[in-house]
Amino acid sequence: MTVPDIRLRSVATTLPGPAVDNATLTRRFSMPSAWETWIDDFVGTRTRHFAVDLGTGEVRHTLTDLGAAAGRKALDDAGVDPGEVDLMVLATSSPDMLMPATVNMVADRLGIDGLPAYQLQSGCTGAVQAIDVACQLLRAGRGRTALVLGADSCAKHLDVTVDPATLTPAEQINGVLFGDGAGAMVLSTEPVPGRAVLRGVLLKLAGLGRAPGQTVAWYGERGRTGGDRPIGEDYKAIEESVPVLAAEALDELLDDLDWKESDLDYLLPPQLSGRMTARIVERLDVPGAHEVSCVAETGNTGNALPFFQLERALPRMVAGDRAAAVAIESSKWIKAGFALEKV
Amino acid sequence: MTVPDIRLRSVATTLPGPAVDNATLTRRFSMPSAWETWIDDFVGTRTRHFAVDLGTGEVRHTLTDLGAAAGRKALDDAGVDPGEVDLMVLATSSPDMLMPATVNMVADRLGIDGLPAYQLQSGCTGAVQAIDVACQLLRAGRGRTALVLGADSCAKHLDVTVDPATLTPAEQINGVLFGDGAGAMVLSTEPVPGRAVLRGVLLKLAGLGRAPGQTVAWYGERGRTGGDRPIGEDYKAIEESVPVLAAEALDELLDDLDWKESDLDYLLPPQLSGRMTARIVERLDVPGAHEVSCVAETGNTGNALPFFQLERALPRMVAGDRAAAVAIESSKWIKAGFALEKV
Repeated sequence: MTVPDIRLRSVATTLPGPAVDNATLTRRFSMPSAWETWIDDFVGTRTRHFAVDLGTGEVRHTLTDLGAAAGRKALDDAGVDPGEVDLMVLATSSPDMLMPATVNMVADRLGIDGLPAYQLQSGCTGAVQAIDVACQLLRAGRGRTALVLGADSCAKHLDVTVDPATLTPAEQINGVLFGDGAGAMVLSTEPVPGRAVLRGVLLKLAGLGRAPGQTVAWYGERGRTGGDRPIGEDYKAIEESVPVLAAEALDELLDDLDWKESDLDYLLPPQLSGRMTARIVERLDVPGAHEVSCVAETGNTGNALPFFQLERALPRMVAGDRAAAVAIESSKWIKAGFALEKV
Repeated sequence: MTVPDIRLRSVATTLPGPAVDNATLTRRFSMPSAWETWIDDFVGTRTRHFAVDLGTGEVRHTLTDLGAAAGRKALDDAGVDPGEVDLMVLATSSPDMLMPATVNMVADRLGIDGLPAYQLQSGCTGAVQAIDVACQLLRAGRGRTALVLGADSCAKHLDVTVDPATLTPAEQINGVLFGDGAGAMVLSTEPVPGRAVLRGVLLKLAGLGRAPGQTVAWYGERGRTGGDRPIGEDYKAIEESVPVLAAEALDELLDDLDWKESDLDYLLPPQLSGRMTARIVERLDVPGAHEVSCVAETGNTGNALPFFQLERALPRMVAGDRAAAVAIESSKWIKAGFALEKV
């Protein structure tokens, strides 16, 4: 059995509603203008999009809506009919429901049936996990064409009635750090020329004995029983650990491939925020590679984010160009990345 | 590249707390004795276990607790050190949190680090999805040993303060149908003799244009906004569709392997309830195979259930025996199954 190369036939993304800038957020939540400056300088994210109407709190776009829109674009761009898809993998930390899985609802919207579909529960490394699972299934002979999706939405976490002044700094950061969106790609074992080939994937738990850096609870019938906020972050741990883990991830990814840093033409770094990205890129120290970042425009879109980076990088890559993406999950700490080569 | 056989080196399970019988449930919720008879006759489940203390509502066991206990047993039974595990896959519909994924917390408990771990969000077919992903990753050369887990807990859905008499019949059924538990297995590419070999997996979406038969919502910061119950079932659709889909799944699983129904020595049918299982087994019509059911003792443990069935079936199988398991997910309708042969 010959193990086929896996090619990216297309990448597409979707963002809900208009771009919300820091001035708009500041006005909406009646915060002083110093808050806007603080977001600009400390967070470094200029705009993001929300599935929720900030005025009314109404959810305008479900995760299914976003995933289906991105999936349809990716299929159209690849010239692949929904009936040609052999398997689907979706990664998210914020599914519409616990059941049905959102991937099944997206399949229904796209007219897809009769195939295996998987939904991975993960945070910032979920897109890498989804790419990895789809690749390995294609390599194991499960089919020729996979539709891979990553999507996240703050809708169930965003309370538009809250007064930010009553929140802790960490909670305020959350409100401006994240954005909603979805991405999709078509992976194929067919030797389509002029596409990027996936050369390697890195995925390693790195949380043994280490407290979670980020926690997101959920509630059912019993509802919230205490006064605790459902979301928790240890930003000090995140600031300290993510740059270190990102450097380790890049080293390990390149080592596995026998690539050197000087071989890289494009670098897709982790995108927690604009400010963190700058710190991470400095630490990664790959001056010869073009940085491909989207976080200033999209915010941290979680599982969708690498798709936004790929959408920016792929059209710029020429034959022989190499790219590496790194993602770090700070929930219980995961190192991840993938490497591409344009052929 | 030779694609290796995948062997089940061990299967283990865990159940929280004592078995809760129908008489106890009836007394606990001050229901008339006719309710006990109704559970016995209409549901057919005699006992189940809960992660929640029914007296106080206290959560005694997290999903991480249950998964770690089952995982440790499976590793011990296989004689596999945690350091020998190359990848982990966990399936659940009821993770402890959205982040970190429960699989990462289980890894930490078992002393496992530095490997890829995946958590699949699914209902009754999640165990098959997890087995499938682990198998394909092993076949694609990702390692030699996989730890696969399936676990579910009603803890966040079970409100011990509710008066069942105020609930609809469908809601009353939910309260007695499900049980908490976890299962684990060690899969290996090594040719250990006297083990069962996984011969095939079936996994197909079957929900195109069909309304979900089961829905489970979750809530975050925004909490529940309406008076709607977070859980919904269409038991009429489930009763009608599951037996039909189960028969299709078994046919397709056997067709793929070129096996006949008369080749089967053991049948592991879907286990929504004792009563439904009887209807499904009748429809499957494989009189030559021993039925392996656990639902009367465990209740429907969701993603853990096939592990309980395997734990019962494997010690009875002798060399050359063949077994088929079928699982149907009624959320957005998935047909699933797997086939084993003892070597």
